[in-house]
Amino acid sequence: MKIVLLGSGNVATHLGKALSAAGHEIIQVWSRTLDNAKVLAESLKSDFINDLSGVNPNAELYLIAVSDDAIPQVAANLPFNDKILAHTSGTSELDIPGISGVFYPLQTFSKQKRVNFSIIPVAIEANSPAVADMLEHLAKSISSKVIQLNSEQRKALHIAAVFACNFSNHLYAIADTILRANNLEFDLIKPLITETAEKVQVNIPESVQTGPAVRNDKMTMNKHFEFLKNDVLLQEIYEKLSKSIINLSDRA
Amino acid sequence: MKIVLLGSGNVATHLGKALSAAGHEIIQVWSRTLDNAKVLAESLKSDFINDLSGVNPNAELYLIAVSDDAIPQVAANLPFNDKILAHTSGTSELDIPGISGVFYPLQTFSKQKRVNFSIIPVAIEANSPAVADMLEHLAKSISSKVIQLNSEQRKALHIAAVFACNFSNHLYAIADTILRANNLEFDLIKPLITETAEKVQVNIPESVQTGPAVRNDKMTMNKHFEFLKNDVLLQEIYEKLSKSIINLSDRA
Repeated sequence: MKIVLLGSGNVATHLGKALSAAGHEIIQVWSRTLDNAKVLAESLKSDFINDLSGVNPNAELYLIAVSDDAIPQVAANLPFNDKILAHTSGTSELDIPGISGVFYPLQTFSKQKRVNFSIIPVAIEANSPAVADMLEHLAKSISSKVIQLNSEQRKALHIAAVFACNFSNHLYAIADTILRANNLEFDLIKPLITETAEKVQVNIPESVQTGPAVRNDKMTMNKHFEFLKNDVLLQEIYEKLSKSIINLSDRA
Repeated sequence: MKIVLLGSGNVATHLGKALSAAGHEIIQVWSRTLDNAKVLAESLKSDFINDLSGVNPNAELYLIAVSDDAIPQVAANLPFNDKILAHTSGTSELDIPGISGVFYPLQTFSKQKRVNFSIIPVAIEANSPAVADMLEHLAKSISSKVIQLNSEQRKALHIAAVFACNFSNHLYAIADTILRANNLEFDLIKPLITETAEKVQVNIPESVQTGPAVRNDKMTMNKHFEFLKNDVLLQEIYEKLSKSIINLSDRA
């Protein structure tokens, strides 16, 4: 398929590489910043541009991988209105002028790390069966896990991913901060992080919950709360998450 | 080494099995509940008892793997006061009457899943060089990662583990709840959970943070906050963690 990629961030980069590797032709990369468009375009052997009015009209699909608030503006400023435009956002609606589909790959992309796209779920949504078919066909060329979701489900999936991935990573960062402040290495808890993620591959998370909160061990929780006394926000995070664990185990 | 194990929970179970597999002799298991003592004792080919006054006085080491608030009571009610007692807690002090050492394995133990003890860090603390040597020797027989920590460092390590492991697992549980409520399977985010945990094996967590908060994408965060409107505690968790991510990236 001939595709124009609009964007040059983490999603555009990983998606562009995966599509290109699957045999699709990225004929052009647009980015607001010409240097960014150039870097990605060179790795994809594409043309590049930073002016929306000059976007190539000969693609079969225009994939918009920019920040959510920029999607309407990019869609509105393309020099045609009869093409298939899809965005890659987890949370933006399908119902944006000019947009006819959504192609949302559920993964955490960092430029530092390659990802295996074949196991990444791709959520598809479209305003017509033809576009749905086209996007599903495209998604299946790079992933073995393609699903059709409505906007509400896609948003739920995105929010679940924010909790399970973005917030977990931040908890690792908090752990790193606490360890460093006490002359301890982050390496110490790496096996624990791996084990915690592995456990839920074969168990329901709630059923393998461990730690002071699920035991309602108030003495330990109080000591930890006291230990964090110089950081009110950390204390609040500790308290809210512990409360949520206790609530969930009470309901079980 | 001849060891009496006091406790029959997750830590006692996994530790007992690892020590036994390493050739140590667990001569007796004590638990408040005789049935629990019996189940573990049978798998370790040990004697078992639920009366502290009957604990076998012929062990070289008494390992106390009970909840933090029960440690002082167990230590005080043994029928001798000239033996080496060590507890396995991350947060309890070394300075408890009768206790001369700490043997803290840093891992999340669930009865459902076997663990590879050899990569589990074991933190040692003792009130004499002789006990420190003995516990270190014991730890090295089951783990390749043995460290001497003071009580403050051990508590910091435990708290870091609560954030990185216990709280992460709860975030997985929250994600599971959100997905189910929207007729989606937890399976969808399993690759993401694995990828998130793998990324920090070779990167500093802060450097691979992704998601709306680190981009300060207020539109998306507001939509997510609105989506969670029926659960005030979840909204608070979303808000506090997002704020903490923004703070950390502002400091960088």
